[in-house]
Amino acid sequence: MPEPLIALDWGTTRARAYLISESGEAVQKRLADQGIQSVPAGGYPAAFEALAGDLRRAAPEAAIVLAGMVGSRNGWVEAPYVACPASPEEIAAAGIAVDLAAGTRATILPGLSCDDGAFDVMRGEETLVVGLGLADGLACLPGTHSKWAEIRGGRITRFASFMTGEVYGLLRNHSILARLAEEPSGEDARDGAARGLAAAARPAGLLNAAFAARTEVLAGRMSGGAVGPFLSALLAAQEIAGAQALFGRTGRIHLVADGILAESYGAALAAAGIEVAVTAPEAAFIAGVRRLAAGLAR
Amino acid sequence: MPEPLIALDWGTTRARAYLISESGEAVQKRLADQGIQSVPAGGYPAAFEALAGDLRRAAPEAAIVLAGMVGSRNGWVEAPYVACPASPEEIAAAGIAVDLAAGTRATILPGLSCDDGAFDVMRGEETLVVGLGLADGLACLPGTHSKWAEIRGGRITRFASFMTGEVYGLLRNHSILARLAEEPSGEDARDGAARGLAAAARPAGLLNAAFAARTEVLAGRMSGGAVGPFLSALLAAQEIAGAQALFGRTGRIHLVADGILAESYGAALAAAGIEVAVTAPEAAFIAGVRRLAAGLAR
Repeated sequence: MPEPLIALDWGTTRARAYLISESGEAVQKRLADQGIQSVPAGGYPAAFEALAGDLRRAAPEAAIVLAGMVGSRNGWVEAPYVACPASPEEIAAAGIAVDLAAGTRATILPGLSCDDGAFDVMRGEETLVVGLGLADGLACLPGTHSKWAEIRGGRITRFASFMTGEVYGLLRNHSILARLAEEPSGEDARDGAARGLAAAARPAGLLNAAFAARTEVLAGRMSGGAVGPFLSALLAAQEIAGAQALFGRTGRIHLVADGILAESYGAALAAAGIEVAVTAPEAAFIAGVRRLAAGLAR
Repeated sequence: MPEPLIALDWGTTRARAYLISESGEAVQKRLADQGIQSVPAGGYPAAFEALAGDLRRAAPEAAIVLAGMVGSRNGWVEAPYVACPASPEEIAAAGIAVDLAAGTRATILPGLSCDDGAFDVMRGEETLVVGLGLADGLACLPGTHSKWAEIRGGRITRFASFMTGEVYGLLRNHSILARLAEEPSGEDARDGAARGLAAAARPAGLLNAAFAARTEVLAGRMSGGAVGPFLSALLAAQEIAGAQALFGRTGRIHLVADGILAESYGAALAAAGIEVAVTAPEAAFIAGVRRLAAGLAR
């Protein structure tokens, strides 16, 4: 049943293209800056050709699946959100077929919506969550707009977004704290992270705790290099506390991250007494898109 | 005992100068953009002359008191922070005398520091808090960096800063929400404020609740004009909740604000079931600087 697959994670600013073998190995992959915001109207077949035309020629029989913002209102064709709770089969069934230049078909995967008190949406992350293959659990996907998703009985039951990465950038680079912030040394990174986690544990909340980065530096108690790591740890801890308040405390989190985000969220989760299972985003995407491709009508 | 007083609230970007009569009336006042950041080294006597020279000629016997960032490391002369708890008498006693061009003396008031777990400072706001004349109470001074101050037995026992106004500006004007935000109508203002207060009551915290402004607009449930009022109400409510967690729940708050901040904080405090006593910042400053001037060594 498994067969080769060409899969694109096609976001707003970037695209990743993979040729995935029958056995699930990414035999070719590439990253391009050609996100949907750089694709002109009607330009998607040509943009696909530029991104993955050689992959298609290498595996002409491969199914082609496109995930992410390519299915948004501002993308190629809008693939309407599937409302939670949603199973992998329900997500796959809502894929939208499009024709590529050569007449070959591709499927655009939908995103998910959730109306659990607050209305929320995701597009692209659902594929990574599916890739975790969980029957029950809680997944954390940190980033510019982090997503947390709850899985029950194999379905994504609800999820929530957090503006963590974006607020980090605003505070680190555009607030009064930016004037004090310097490039961190290794020692700064450790000290700032420890102070940020401690600040998050104080009762007065983010708006108060972030200001401490300023007063601690002005008082000579913290280096300017620690400001960024302080904010990063503070914000990760605030996000984790918010997610726990929303989804309930859990002893184990599935963290979809690599590099510095895996480190900082791993440390913040450990500080909160939570066990962490880490999956790299690429591995989660490949597993998820294979699972969803297997459920597509062919 | 009371005598005429020339008082300046001299901040980073602006200065306010008052000639205050024996009876406490601001008989003359002016506002200038000549904050300390526009005063060159050695330029303070001349800057004072430009701001208030005519007030001094009108009342040559008046005491002269300068409050705010003029007493910071980047101001005229540094008036070191007085550590909390601090009484009005202790604040006045820490004033620093400076000579004006004509040989007339002026007093620069100090700021306050607080080391209640987190280190924090204020400079200028202490004068407004003193002006409330409280024996016991909790004061809220909303702004770019809001201050909350606890008063016990006539002394300022501790205080905390919140980056509320600054974070509002960053989210409203520089985040992904800025693209959706429009000028609010009256209806937008009411709807956005109600939604922002409701969002603040949800459990997942600020990083999650702010994102709802985006999803609600994209889903067609909220107008772009409501984004600013939504954020304003959400942030005020988060600040209030944080201050309550820090200082304990209280049935009554002394709010030092006017205009739109008095309205938005008044509404957020009322929604939290808190009674509000409002004092305009100018009235609080005049009362506070008179009280502190009376305690100065002459």
